[in-house]
Amino acid sequence: MAGGRVIVALDPGVGEPLSYWLNIVSRLCGGVAGFKFGLPFLLSYGVDGVRVSRGLCGDMFIVDLKLADVGDFMVSTVSRFIDYVDGVIAHGFIGFEGALRELKDYLDSVGVKLAIVVSMSHAGSLDVLDVNIDRLLWVADRVRPWGLVAPATRPHIIGYVRSRAPWAKILAPGVGVQGVRPGDALRAGADYEIIGRAITRAPDPLKALQTINLEHEKILGGMGVERVH
Amino acid sequence: MAGGRVIVALDPGVGEPLSYWLNIVSRLCGGVAGFKFGLPFLLSYGVDGVRVSRGLCGDMFIVDLKLADVGDFMVSTVSRFIDYVDGVIAHGFIGFEGALRELKDYLDSVGVKLAIVVSMSHAGSLDVLDVNIDRLLWVADRVRPWGLVAPATRPHIIGYVRSRAPWAKILAPGVGVQGVRPGDALRAGADYEIIGRAITRAPDPLKALQTINLEHEKILGGMGVERVH
Repeated sequence: MAGGRVIVALDPGVGEPLSYWLNIVSRLCGGVAGFKFGLPFLLSYGVDGVRVSRGLCGDMFIVDLKLADVGDFMVSTVSRFIDYVDGVIAHGFIGFEGALRELKDYLDSVGVKLAIVVSMSHAGSLDVLDVNIDRLLWVADRVRPWGLVAPATRPHIIGYVRSRAPWAKILAPGVGVQGVRPGDALRAGADYEIIGRAITRAPDPLKALQTINLEHEKILGGMGVERVH
Repeated sequence: MAGGRVIVALDPGVGEPLSYWLNIVSRLCGGVAGFKFGLPFLLSYGVDGVRVSRGLCGDMFIVDLKLADVGDFMVSTVSRFIDYVDGVIAHGFIGFEGALRELKDYLDSVGVKLAIVVSMSHAGSLDVLDVNIDRLLWVADRVRPWGLVAPATRPHIIGYVRSRAPWAKILAPGVGVQGVRPGDALRAGADYEIIGRAITRAPDPLKALQTINLEHEKILGGMGVERVH
């Protein structure tokens, strides 16, 4: 049973064995909202790495390739691992017709969630993305995905996305190593915090997760949310 | 010896054997400017599929994952296949600091080319990308990559990119199946045409390539370019 507001990002370095990550999935399973697999994971262990992980844990699995291609390519891409995942992440800036529309239709047909990136955690996000936030939210509104991705590093962006898209789950990356404390993104209006190294590289990943979950409980309690769901 | 202005996109369907694509690489090697490998190829055959292809042909290999993440992630991603490629493709909209700057620095350090997407071939490209073309070219000008990617489906965009970034090679996808005739993107100012199914799904891929190469020679001759280099 998944629980809490943490989505754990599984990002292997070059040459690391899959067993390291399978061990983390096994130990944390049930205490997280889900797990997120990116390009480093897929290139290291292939689709098979996701399939094997799925055999160990029924929590929400999100494949985050930051998809940003034309529609039929994105569909062809996700069809290769669709049986093992609950959600995928794509970029909003690619637009609706010929891209996110086709991806959303396909994901709906197989019952897999879509989350759309509308802002990112690094400084360069200000160059093009953040000055187009209204345009990106307009695209999101046409697609109506399950979730939106907005950075924990800029809480005012999370707050703005929250106010403009009350229907969306907000997933916030950038917690931990980028200097943002666990809980800050929830305070700003996010539903989930995506946390990688602060958990997966901790001496005891389960203990690190439990400490963060407790912090989240306190914050959500203070916000009048009865318990972490 | 690579030649011509065609970059062949290798995009396998689900369940196709690698041997189909290795055969295409072997047969077309020397008659193309290069080959482009995308997510469907990487997810089907892994990094090993690129490595084995490299063993068959020394033409320009471009891995096109449409990278659109923070810098250290993109570097971690491309480091896994860096020994087998000559170029990679990333999106311009992710911006400079914390993203394309880090990727470009890394690629420079290992002598691999970067091409940046500034516009795409589908209708949704007009939602966010095309109305930000000047902003994207400003990012490109800061990064100064080897190439820019602009769609054959909108020749006026290619012409505009050509005029604003005379220093860049222009790579144009969308030729063939999307209704654009081979040569039209060269006429508009592109340096390379990215062609997939019109060649790789032809009854005789080599013959299809040769027909396109002849057409290109004619067009370039008419433009005063002495021969296809």
